[in-house]
Amino acid sequence: MQRKIRLHRSEPISSSATHPANHFVRVVKRVRKGIVSIITEEKPRNLEEHILSMLIPGWSSSTSDPPPRHFGTGFVIHPDGYLVTNEHVIRDADKIAVKLDGYTRFLPAQRVWSDEERDLAVIKVQPPHPLKPLRLGSAETVEVGEWVIAVGNPMGLNHTVTVGVISGKNRPLQVANRYYGNVIQTDAAINPGNSGGPLINILGEVIGINTLIIYPSQSIGFAIPIDDIKPWIRKYMS
Amino acid sequence: MQRKIRLHRSEPISSSATHPANHFVRVVKRVRKGIVSIITEEKPRNLEEHILSMLIPGWSSSTSDPPPRHFGTGFVIHPDGYLVTNEHVIRDADKIAVKLDGYTRFLPAQRVWSDEERDLAVIKVQPPHPLKPLRLGSAETVEVGEWVIAVGNPMGLNHTVTVGVISGKNRPLQVANRYYGNVIQTDAAINPGNSGGPLINILGEVIGINTLIIYPSQSIGFAIPIDDIKPWIRKYMS
Amino acid sequence: MQRKIRLHRSEPISSSATHPANHFVRVVKRVRKGIVSIITEEKPRNLEEHILSMLIPGWSSSTSDPPPRHFGTGFVIHPDGYLVTNEHVIRDADKIAVKLDGYTRFLPAQRVWSDEERDLAVIKVQPPHPLKPLRLGSAETVEVGEWVIAVGNPMGLNHTVTVGVISGKNRPLQVANRYYGNVIQTDAAINPGNSGGPLINILGEVIGINTLIIYPSQSIGFAIPIDDIKPWIRKYMS
Repeated sequence: MQRKIRLHRSEPISSSATHPANHFVRVVKRVRKGIVSIITEEKPRNLEEHILSMLIPGWSSSTSDPPPRHFGTGFVIHPDGYLVTNEHVIRDADKIAVKLDGYTRFLPAQRVWSDEERDLAVIKVQPPHPLKPLRLGSAETVEVGEWVIAVGNPMGLNHTVTVGVISGKNRPLQVANRYYGNVIQTDAAINPGNSGGPLINILGEVIGINTLIIYPSQSIGFAIPIDDIKPWIRKYMS
Repeated sequence: MQRKIRLHRSEPISSSATHPANHFVRVVKRVRKGIVSIITEEKPRNLEEHILSMLIPGWSSSTSDPPPRHFGTGFVIHPDGYLVTNEHVIRDADKIAVKLDGYTRFLPAQRVWSDEERDLAVIKVQPPHPLKPLRLGSAETVEVGEWVIAVGNPMGLNHTVTVGVISGKNRPLQVANRYYGNVIQTDAAINPGNSGGPLINILGEVIGINTLIIYPSQSIGFAIPIDDIKPWIRKYMS
Repeated sequence: MQRKIRLHRSEPISSSATHPANHFVRVVKRVRKGIVSIITEEKPRNLEEHILSMLIPGWSSSTSDPPPRHFGTGFVIHPDGYLVTNEHVIRDADKIAVKLDGYTRFLPAQRVWSDEERDLAVIKVQPPHPLKPLRLGSAETVEVGEWVIAVGNPMGLNHTVTVGVISGKNRPLQVANRYYGNVIQTDAAINPGNSGGPLINILGEVIGINTLIIYPSQSIGFAIPIDDIKPWIRKYMS
């Protein structure tokens, strides 16, 4: 049986991305070079076992398993390689590695500053070229209902872009032994590896740091306002 | 080591919220005064135990735990303080309390009318000032794919705004012993405390009452068409 | 007590759907006739038991339960009734039934071609009238951050429309024993019955076939690029 199917071929350059409703395409292009993927390797839990496993060939124990790895996100605040992320992303990390946009190789990163109470940290890489910092906006002037874009590394899916709106602002939030006094709530999809990544307004400015989700729930995520970290960056850096 | 970080400071008044793509900001501002947060306290399950605990000092039993609390949402239909919600929000409630937008104190609310079969109820508060009713639209002219906004009180996060589209309409739905003949489906994030809250179109009109979710699923929520409650409100009130 | 409620009645034809921000309404109207709901009935797992149950009246076993049913989605590629779906939607199916948009009756469908490795299949129905094929676009020119629309049959909710953006593209993905070399990631809500359905750009062109989700996660779904199936359709059909 011979059949002919007429396949409608699209133009080589699609006009869908340039449709006037597609505001986020330009924003993503502008910011993605300023966002990095983080992978951490946990400290072996039992140091004694770890030493034995290195000294005695064939030593077999639970520590001979590869140490657990975790994903996180960060963003550039200085061309020399300074990156902001959540403190909880690097807390238990023995090694921190960072992947820049467009690179396949990971760079080692060092802790520069961290504040457990505020869940904020600065790490540093030795970049192959000056990095482009993200523009910092302010969460104070953000309005409920406005579009926001989250970029992150959920499950290691680097530079994952999700879109939603501001669901609420100035929320107090108590999680375990931490108190977040004033967070932004969004319905943009946030998953574990998004932690430390930027929440971005439609102008491409960072307004928050994606930090928490309520699980299980439908699209209830929280970001620390960027305003909270500005004085700490200044204080540390200058 | 002394370092200088150039922080890009945003203008005191951000232009992101006034970006032409941010249609929902205006809608949210218009409707939020007409939406209330509901918290209910369940009847103690075992009345005998409850009486004993009040009569005998030091009486200890499971009923000495605080009674379970639940969250819900409602919206204003009359300036005197008449509010619509779902019947299931208040069904097992011993006490109903309502928080108006911009107030921190809860007001006590009374049942006025409820219809278990339709899962609809009217409650009333004594407001400190005349309330502004939401504009009622119609679900009949709603089109699949159009933007909708849900405002609610999930996990007690009052006035949470989530955005999505109409996923389907005129759906029959059987849940437990109830039959919803004709519901609206949306992918706007709906969580338990959203029940009773309004589903709003891009013009700021109520088109439905957020009532059900499929759990677990990704963003499958259902609203009772506002048209279904209009005759019942009229009948009861006039 | 006599009360009057002023009900704001919307115009018989709402202007919300024609609001300039409601781009997706037109897209949905254009594509929905080209999308079908699929329901499959599994082969009985134990053929011997099945035969016994047919031969011996009153024979009772687990196989006397109705065989499991599953939902899926497909879309029209040829007016004669050729439909694309995922191979995994029909793999274990004993019977395949298809519901066209606007019809209540299911039509029987036959396997025409399937490729387990690529998770793609073509099935055929005998349509009551020539079907309207969807326009095929290309995933190659798609940009991260652009709007996409998924139409599918999650939980049998036919023609469910969900909206999101392209979260990533050219992702390699390993799932069980299959390797998807190059998938599109989206935050449009995808649920099990969406499998085989189209991912559509804002111009109404198919750019992918919704195939996978990460569960549990918030809005991480994957589609096979439409480009991957074009040569296979041509090869088979001509």
